[in-house]
Amino acid sequence: MESPVRTLLSSGVTLADAALERLLPSPDTLPHSIHRAMRHSIFAGGKRLRPILSMEAGRMVANTGNLPEGIADLGAAIEMLHTYSLIHDDLPALDNDDLRRGKPTCHVAFGEAIAILAGDALQTLAFQTIARLDVPAETVVQILQDISTAVNTGVGRLGDLDTGIPPGMIGGQVVDIESEGALPTAELVETIHRAKTGALITTSIVSGGLYALGATSRNAGSSEIISRLRIFGEKAGLAFQIVDDVLDMTQSSEELGKTAGKDTATVKATWPAVFGIEQSRRDAAQLIADAFAAVEPFGSAASSLKALAQYLVDRTH
Amino acid sequence: MESPVRTLLSSGVTLADAALERLLPSPDTLPHSIHRAMRHSIFAGGKRLRPILSMEAGRMVANTGNLPEGIADLGAAIEMLHTYSLIHDDLPALDNDDLRRGKPTCHVAFGEAIAILAGDALQTLAFQTIARLDVPAETVVQILQDISTAVNTGVGRLGDLDTGIPPGMIGGQVVDIESEGALPTAELVETIHRAKTGALITTSIVSGGLYALGATSRNAGSSEIISRLRIFGEKAGLAFQIVDDVLDMTQSSEELGKTAGKDTATVKATWPAVFGIEQSRRDAAQLIADAFAAVEPFGSAASSLKALAQYLVDRTH
Repeated sequence: MESPVRTLLSSGVTLADAALERLLPSPDTLPHSIHRAMRHSIFAGGKRLRPILSMEAGRMVANTGNLPEGIADLGAAIEMLHTYSLIHDDLPALDNDDLRRGKPTCHVAFGEAIAILAGDALQTLAFQTIARLDVPAETVVQILQDISTAVNTGVGRLGDLDTGIPPGMIGGQVVDIESEGALPTAELVETIHRAKTGALITTSIVSGGLYALGATSRNAGSSEIISRLRIFGEKAGLAFQIVDDVLDMTQSSEELGKTAGKDTATVKATWPAVFGIEQSRRDAAQLIADAFAAVEPFGSAASSLKALAQYLVDRTH
Repeated sequence: MESPVRTLLSSGVTLADAALERLLPSPDTLPHSIHRAMRHSIFAGGKRLRPILSMEAGRMVANTGNLPEGIADLGAAIEMLHTYSLIHDDLPALDNDDLRRGKPTCHVAFGEAIAILAGDALQTLAFQTIARLDVPAETVVQILQDISTAVNTGVGRLGDLDTGIPPGMIGGQVVDIESEGALPTAELVETIHRAKTGALITTSIVSGGLYALGATSRNAGSSEIISRLRIFGEKAGLAFQIVDDVLDMTQSSEELGKTAGKDTATVKATWPAVFGIEQSRRDAAQLIADAFAAVEPFGSAASSLKALAQYLVDRTH
């Protein structure tokens, strides 16, 4: 028998994939090349972690046991943003990766020009999808504000990188690129992780909650709900990235399905590079405990989201 | 004394520039490189045509003689989208242009990685700016839907490129890249022009009208207003691009401020390449007449928008 969290993951993948299949232009829509390139990267075997977190946050806030109607489209929009960032990250001018999840990266399969434009188009389609969400306009605007901030150029408020701007995905990518080769410090690694991966994971959870509040026309207590979701997202997102760093250092390429040890080979800023493997594992466990504490008031409605977070730090690949 | 249209243009540039200055992160915000790259391309001497058309469409629909409060931010968002598309278009994998408006292109000044991310960030910032517009949430959502469709992958409904999807900027870029070297046909050139440049010009005008309707809380007659603005935008946008093609073919590089004749040298799909210079000029004049007819019901409130369109087809550089 499958564990509850595995059932949750597999049904989440099914829902997210169905929404993506419906929202992406068909491969036979002209111009073929870009639509095929977008699909190539979107359907390359992603775990749909962000859509699943978004949907489960929505389920928790709705508190009916069910997902709010149409929330898979929000998850799909977030997955489009994640995928666009991977396509551009893999380009020769950035990480220059030929393979992702064992398949040729977008520019290897379709050429650089189409890969750049396919990334651009996935960002556009994400915002178009948000514009069409089946929730009140006020909710759409709240979701748009939160997500657009999370994928922007902020780097956060840590150490001497203090900017007063919330951390954002592109900001994290820039700091990551520019710090390559430098000796990673604690502030630098935390800044990159919170911005490059943490911000999108956090907004996945926050926007799922906003969606559920809008879908159920609720205002009472909404600001406390959202601030608890944000803490959960920030803590769980950082724990997830720390575990990713540890796995990259400790597992073989075969177990990971990608080139292991690449981060250490190029002196990338990773958590274990600064704190060591054992401390990294303790930090991840503490962050998950903090994340759990933030959603304690939701009671049993939080169990799926907590099980997901636990699964993510316990995973071995 | 300056002509009225020149006054309109110069005050429009001032307004758009002030909004952009306020909305873009300062050059001293970390990470410096991307914020400086975004500013490099945004403040490289653009004519602010799209923001000005957007603001003047708003003024016409508001019908008070004044611009709706805060509409310059909408114009700035549209200029960010235009600029992001230029940054990515100039990349080595696409047009490989070293100069734009006499200045080094973004990737020449900041490297390819930062240029790719700066383009990405300008798209994000555009949607974040739209999310914060000072109009009712319903209006924000309408504007978001129209603009995100206009910068997407559609190629329109012409000839055998029939897709049922409205023309979009990225779709036009893809068709333009992929048709390079092919003998241009009338259908191909019209499709590229309507998608690659026409769609963003059209949504500039349509979204300016939507903004004014939202700012003045009006619903009555709004669908006719928007459909007239759309026709005006499509006709004037195509006329603008035809004139651009003609100028490229007939002017020296010095007069144009860019490499003239580049389109013919590489057998690019241009209007005069298919229809000849004289027919192109007649087509542009007819399109402007059609555009004027569409806004006839607005009476004297349409005079600024009409003067702008006339100026754009009469320009010599």
